Amino acid sequence: MDAAPDPDAESPPPRPPGAEPPWWPGARPADELADAAPAVVDWAVRYLEGVGERPVLSEVAPGWVRDQLPAHAPEEPEAWDAILSDLDRVVVPGTTHWQSPRWFGYFQANSSAPAVLAEAIIATLGTQGMLWQTGPACTEVETLIMDWLAELLGLPDRFRSDGPGGGVIQDSASSSTLVATLAARDRARAAGARLDDLVAYTSVDAHSSVEKGLRVAGLLADQLRSVPVDGARAMRPDALAEAVAADVAAGRTPFLVVATVGTTSTHGLDPLGPVGDVARAHGAWFHVDAAHAGAAALLPELRWIHDGLEAADSYVMDPHKWLFTAMECSALFVADAAPLADALSITPEYLRNAATGSGQVVDYRDWQVPLGRRFRALKLWAVIRRFGAEGLRAAVRGHIALAADLEARLAADARFVLPVPRPLNLVCFAHVAGDEASEALLGALNATGRVFCSHTRIDGRYLLRVSVGQTATGPADLDELWALVDRLAPPA
Amino acid sequence: MDAAPDPDAESPPPRPPGAEPPWWPGARPADELADAAPAVVDWAVRYLEGVGERPVLSEVAPGWVRDQLPAHAPEEPEAWDAILSDLDRVVVPGTTHWQSPRWFGYFQANSSAPAVLAEAIIATLGTQGMLWQTGPACTEVETLIMDWLAELLGLPDRFRSDGPGGGVIQDSASSSTLVATLAARDRARAAGARLDDLVAYTSVDAHSSVEKGLRVAGLLADQLRSVPVDGARAMRPDALAEAVAADVAAGRTPFLVVATVGTTSTHGLDPLGPVGDVARAHGAWFHVDAAHAGAAALLPELRWIHDGLEAADSYVMDPHKWLFTAMECSALFVADAAPLADALSITPEYLRNAATGSGQVVDYRDWQVPLGRRFRALKLWAVIRRFGAEGLRAAVRGHIALAADLEARLAADARFVLPVPRPLNLVCFAHVAGDEASEALLGALNATGRVFCSHTRIDGRYLLRVSVGQTATGPADLDELWALVDRLAPPA
Repeated sequence: MDAAPDPDAESPPPRPPGAEPPWWPGARPADELADAAPAVVDWAVRYLEGVGERPVLSEVAPGWVRDQLPAHAPEEPEAWDAILSDLDRVVVPGTTHWQSPRWFGYFQANSSAPAVLAEAIIATLGTQGMLWQTGPACTEVETLIMDWLAELLGLPDRFRSDGPGGGVIQDSASSSTLVATLAARDRARAAGARLDDLVAYTSVDAHSSVEKGLRVAGLLADQLRSVPVDGARAMRPDALAEAVAADVAAGRTPFLVVATVGTTSTHGLDPLGPVGDVARAHGAWFHVDAAHAGAAALLPELRWIHDGLEAADSYVMDPHKWLFTAMECSALFVADAAPLADALSITPEYLRNAATGSGQVVDYRDWQVPLGRRFRALKLWAVIRRFGAEGLRAAVRGHIALAADLEARLAADARFVLPVPRPLNLVCFAHVAGDEASEALLGALNATGRVFCSHTRIDGRYLLRVSVGQTATGPADLDELWALVDRLAPPA
Repeated sequence: MDAAPDPDAESPPPRPPGAEPPWWPGARPADELADAAPAVVDWAVRYLEGVGERPVLSEVAPGWVRDQLPAHAPEEPEAWDAILSDLDRVVVPGTTHWQSPRWFGYFQANSSAPAVLAEAIIATLGTQGMLWQTGPACTEVETLIMDWLAELLGLPDRFRSDGPGGGVIQDSASSSTLVATLAARDRARAAGARLDDLVAYTSVDAHSSVEKGLRVAGLLADQLRSVPVDGARAMRPDALAEAVAADVAAGRTPFLVVATVGTTSTHGLDPLGPVGDVARAHGAWFHVDAAHAGAAALLPELRWIHDGLEAADSYVMDPHKWLFTAMECSALFVADAAPLADALSITPEYLRNAATGSGQVVDYRDWQVPLGRRFRALKLWAVIRRFGAEGLRAAVRGHIALAADLEARLAADARFVLPVPRPLNLVCFAHVAGDEASEALLGALNATGRVFCSHTRIDGRYLLRVSVGQTATGPADLDELWALVDRLAPPA
């Protein structure tokens, strides 16, 4: 079909009888997939084989990537060879390699072969699982896998799907915390509180997504209390109780308390039991953010990090951070899904269907902000099955052992100080000579291209952060990091 | 490393000298990818080859999928063969096949081979592009591809990145509209308006995401005006002007007007020029939702659907709907990014870096709700390059021609009535005998398993909807749909 029909014509255009696709490029997806996949897989295998030898932090200057590429879209189809060639020529040099075995920055966002392959399957199925009806498997596998995950992490029974609550996959912990915030807000409003009188509480070290979620929800900056922490950077329940009491006395409504298991800066662990007690005493929603650290609860010996979680209304941990599942896969668990649906459900006529009407199914669109949703559960399912529970535990246990080893080396060296505890896989340290030496050390480390570490400030002090949890990170990678630290750090 | 080290021990655990990965399953991602990919690709090719022969709407009962699968995660790793076997045994029967060439329901969420392969590349790179520094290519390719897309669609220059605005990829149109809503809300508040006094306007046929976005943003149901439409289901600017005037007279603040190009129900086309005039006259943010229909602007002969877009503050269209890019890829364009950053930017210490500090780069985390972000632009880049601009136009033009052809057959048959215009690729029709006959016809069509169509109601009347835009849909698929309609519809 070379000549384009005129869609504005009153009578239909003549059609070639029996014409079949392809009548436009790309209309035979199976053939194109079969033809192009081997070269793409080869590229991906080569990338993963070589990623450890590349500068971890991209060395390109602002604007370089764009300058390498055509300013306009091509009129004619291009071959996959051209795309793969541009990946090597432009994208790889322009990439900060989160999948390097010597990625120690921020947190993990680790991927794995099962995640890569599952993403291809997800896009092949192309499911849009907004309703149970539009994706029964997308919906039911998600419910099941969230139950698997709850069991693997030893979460309280209230987060299993056989009660009024259950788990749901969001794109990010930011979105998970936002959804909890919206449910809390609307529950409080339904109980008669005014939006302007609502107050939320979290520690000074909580993730910025807590503040962002409140802002999205319509609250102003003065409706968030930043609760002080103790020397281990854990929220002080006494200070929380005081802040809540002061607000209640002033006629305000405490509606949300967010505790963190593993803060971004230092892996501070808020005491969930006492914090939850305060929340419960005032009818506030209790949300627990374990986005990164929650994966450690795979290990029975570390399950204590969740002590007190029984009182939580909602809990988030991200399999896409330290559980090999690749972005985006954030697991939100709620004790009761009704407040989510109260806050988020709107049903126009075109979405009505018999399955929804029967009340026998879950429509996950009512548990999230977007209407559309991908079959993300398939990715987590593939990862858990390919690793096995023992494999996941071995990996996480191994990362923590490597972090403990680095910590011991730093502690045994007079040049370094470790101002905060290391409960899990994040090591924070400073040079004893002060901030300038610490900042210079970080710069020197990252400038080698062999590692990437990041930083934070605690009580004004500059700390280097080493987060150990990349999929392929092993002892040799930590040895190399330590050798660089040893060589580049000035004397005490 | 068989014996798990004790991470709480004071001295580091003994380590096997020179030990290398794999010290846990999956730690050699390159090897696993090379080993497993051929079977996964074969599975995907087989799925796409056969998807047209499967019942489009899944026929499983609620609970069936879950009942087929183990209640607990496996302890030991499972082979890919077992996973692929479960896909065939459980997932495929439990899937409603959005990628079937005879998918005519709701809207498209079409995928393609370039999208599938790009998803695998995205997860291989595993980029978390929250900051320019954490993904220079992720950021700059996105800026470039949004400019490509703006040019392909003939969007106004104000949406190009060389001014104060530009494009950004969100997960969904719901999120795009939410972000616009938040920017509008905070701009109005910064100008002194109270949240309670804000009022938004959209047509009675607007997508539910407009109402959901307002709810998320903290507004209540009575702060949204549903503006009446004309016979073609287009928003009536006179009615909008009246509603705005009444609110202004009552001391309220019109802060947001959302117009739709191609409503979900019937592809109603709001008149952007007159609607935008009303918005501008009152200083309200003007957002345009062309989530599905925007792709039609690829065709010069249909670019008039965007007439008046020059006045818009923001515009969304979804390449993951009718542009072969697979979920999730929603393109949001703004004339000025500053209000987005004002609403959404929070910078904790651990995200500070020299590139951001220089002001020379874009950090797209400030343009969205989540902090983390995938390299989604790579997917759209691959699709545009593999199809070429001409290929994209041919596909969209072909879909519209098929819809026009179906419309002509329906119009020529006395049993059917077409109560609303068909400007693009969505055909709405009813049986002349009334709602019962129409609803029965839809049920009978879908029960064949050969097609899936959906429905809506307009002024109380039940209409069947046929949306034509699947990647592999061709003339034979429409012939089959027509044959079924012809056979299953009762006489007039």
